[in-house]
Amino acid sequence: MAVNLSVPNDKQILAIDGVQVFIGQARIKKPKHDDLTLVVLNSVNSIGAVFTQNRFCAAPVQIAKQHLVAGTGVRALVINTGNANAGTGQQGLADAEFICEKVAQQIGCQASEVLPFSTGVILEPLPVDKIVAALPKVKVAHWPQAAAAIMTTDTVPKMASRTVYIDGHKVHFTGIAKGSGMIHPNMATMLGFVFTDVSIAQPLLQQMVAEVAATTFNAITVDGDTSTNDSFVVVATGKSPLSRIVSMSSKNYAAVKIVLADLALELAQAIVRDGEGATKFITIDVRHALTEAEARQVGYAVARSPLVKTAFYASDPNLGRILCAIGYAGIADLDVAAIKVYLGDVLVAEKGGRASSYTEEAGQQIMAQDEITVTIDLARAEAQAKIYTCDLSKEYVAINADYRS
Amino acid sequence: MAVNLSVPNDKQILAIDGVQVFIGQARIKKPKHDDLTLVVLNSVNSIGAVFTQNRFCAAPVQIAKQHLVAGTGVRALVINTGNANAGTGQQGLADAEFICEKVAQQIGCQASEVLPFSTGVILEPLPVDKIVAALPKVKVAHWPQAAAAIMTTDTVPKMASRTVYIDGHKVHFTGIAKGSGMIHPNMATMLGFVFTDVSIAQPLLQQMVAEVAATTFNAITVDGDTSTNDSFVVVATGKSPLSRIVSMSSKNYAAVKIVLADLALELAQAIVRDGEGATKFITIDVRHALTEAEARQVGYAVARSPLVKTAFYASDPNLGRILCAIGYAGIADLDVAAIKVYLGDVLVAEKGGRASSYTEEAGQQIMAQDEITVTIDLARAEAQAKIYTCDLSKEYVAINADYRS
Repeated sequence: MAVNLSVPNDKQILAIDGVQVFIGQARIKKPKHDDLTLVVLNSVNSIGAVFTQNRFCAAPVQIAKQHLVAGTGVRALVINTGNANAGTGQQGLADAEFICEKVAQQIGCQASEVLPFSTGVILEPLPVDKIVAALPKVKVAHWPQAAAAIMTTDTVPKMASRTVYIDGHKVHFTGIAKGSGMIHPNMATMLGFVFTDVSIAQPLLQQMVAEVAATTFNAITVDGDTSTNDSFVVVATGKSPLSRIVSMSSKNYAAVKIVLADLALELAQAIVRDGEGATKFITIDVRHALTEAEARQVGYAVARSPLVKTAFYASDPNLGRILCAIGYAGIADLDVAAIKVYLGDVLVAEKGGRASSYTEEAGQQIMAQDEITVTIDLARAEAQAKIYTCDLSKEYVAINADYRS
Repeated sequence: MAVNLSVPNDKQILAIDGVQVFIGQARIKKPKHDDLTLVVLNSVNSIGAVFTQNRFCAAPVQIAKQHLVAGTGVRALVINTGNANAGTGQQGLADAEFICEKVAQQIGCQASEVLPFSTGVILEPLPVDKIVAALPKVKVAHWPQAAAAIMTTDTVPKMASRTVYIDGHKVHFTGIAKGSGMIHPNMATMLGFVFTDVSIAQPLLQQMVAEVAATTFNAITVDGDTSTNDSFVVVATGKSPLSRIVSMSSKNYAAVKIVLADLALELAQAIVRDGEGATKFITIDVRHALTEAEARQVGYAVARSPLVKTAFYASDPNLGRILCAIGYAGIADLDVAAIKVYLGDVLVAEKGGRASSYTEEAGQQIMAQDEITVTIDLARAEAQAKIYTCDLSKEYVAINADYRS
């Protein structure tokens, strides 16, 4: 089902010096299924993280935030699927904390040095005993197995690596992510983790993660639902001989950010490509907006419209639906006569109506493709934003009507 | 497919003194299909109207607004289906105006006394010649035929009447409406028309229509798409012997408003009951909000969530999805621990988690019904709002992927 999304060869996914991966079976929802991942950090240099802005944010997200604020450092991440531990009140917080304590005992650290993550069904108690029983039995794994172990409705494990030379030194990045439904920015992914051997000061990494998230994990939407559990975490182990990055103005900061943004975009787009029921990958490219926020607002109005998304599913150039969505995006002083809309490189609309050069055949040809870019030129100023989404298919409804997670 | 929506007996739908109805066949999309409605007002007392707030508002909406502002009175409404005359630029405006001129010639009035309405596909030129050719051939009709002639993807014509005694005088109301996709407030309906023989001063009727729209046509959502053409128009012919209403504080103003609101709510709910692919009618009742706007914001977040809507379709009490939608509704200082959520009369969530009294069986029993109320108690203040919506089914996708209008 996933749109042009292949699983990388295991050898393309790099181990990161200073990071050990383990997986296990807690049998939370299914027997004989890897649903528990433990990542042990032997040497944490710095960690940057952004989390969901949903007010019903899950217990593990609340605990992870508290532990990061405690500032004692991070020695482990523990991730379960099958249950989100969200909408679980005080008991949920106690459960997440208890799992951190058990991990801490197992690897020899403080509970506040463990970050918990959960994904799965909301509003059901976490089967904490099953997780605690499975923890001592986890086995050493490689990233592809971890990418598979964090999947829920995903049909394809999502992972990517980069090796680059910066200042003559080789540095490495490996990321895994999961998510295909309940996907909307802040955060867009359910879970995304990137590990690198770069050495970078803590506040700089946090800044970089926030900036990178804005154009990657926070620029995708499948169904407009912002999940309770979304988390994007970047760990830098500092094992690379590249000198420590201590200034935002250093050229190494810029170089690392470019690689991180590129990797994060690949993972974020992989989530859209594997969007529930997706048959097409769509980029909404909004240009010449007054502000970036305005560009995103218009892009999301189009990307969220069920009518636009079903038209893409049908390969039907029913492009009035795009104009309609631009019109209700909430830009009060929008001059519709100045707007130009392109489907691929075909001019569709200008001067408030259909372009005289437009033909149904030209539109149909673009709509038949499985990767489509809609360019919306607002003709207001110089800001722009790209939003990535997929179509809305009968399979989306089938998946969400039949699946409880 | 429509949820508990039956077509009234023709005799239940009242003629309104001072209003004549005609229908015709312009063959805009389909042959042998009534797609043109002409309503002639022999004596217009007053007219109130609210229109879409979409920036790509359709040419007929722009012309209707101009004609209402002109203040020369209204003598006719002309309505076509099959083409929305939206996203049609300057030509669309000229086309809508031309149709008004032709109607004016036909019935003997000024073009500015005619209001045009269109519904159907966006971004395609209006076949104005077909409409103009059909106008002289329209035939006298009764409301049920007009209700059928304004349908697009509707499966059931929508109409309702009321007769009430006010101050000892009989007054009459008849309304028709259409819409089942591209439905979201401001305006929620594609088209709604109510006619009454009440006599009321123009500015009072406009005020009443705006107030009534807020809790009826602007309180429904099928798919979150605000159409380019939505219009809700109330015509009062003044033929009733009930004395003219000239003050908002008069008890007759209040009495008429109650009847109008009741009739408009029936029509608005009919649109949701006939929502594209709908199998369930759902009321989101938000209580104890800080403001009515806040209550509506939370109600719409839940009502628009594809995940909530597919869970209703599946009769699956996957109620964490409701909590999740409340959480991302955008209320920054929401105390999730104080919120209570009920499904029907079953307490589902409190204290940030699942209610201890909740059982899957109790939830399942409510979810199996085809009319469901979700009550969300925010425990903040005294404001409230009700939002009406339907579920999201495979049929919604099929209808919108296969149908071009």
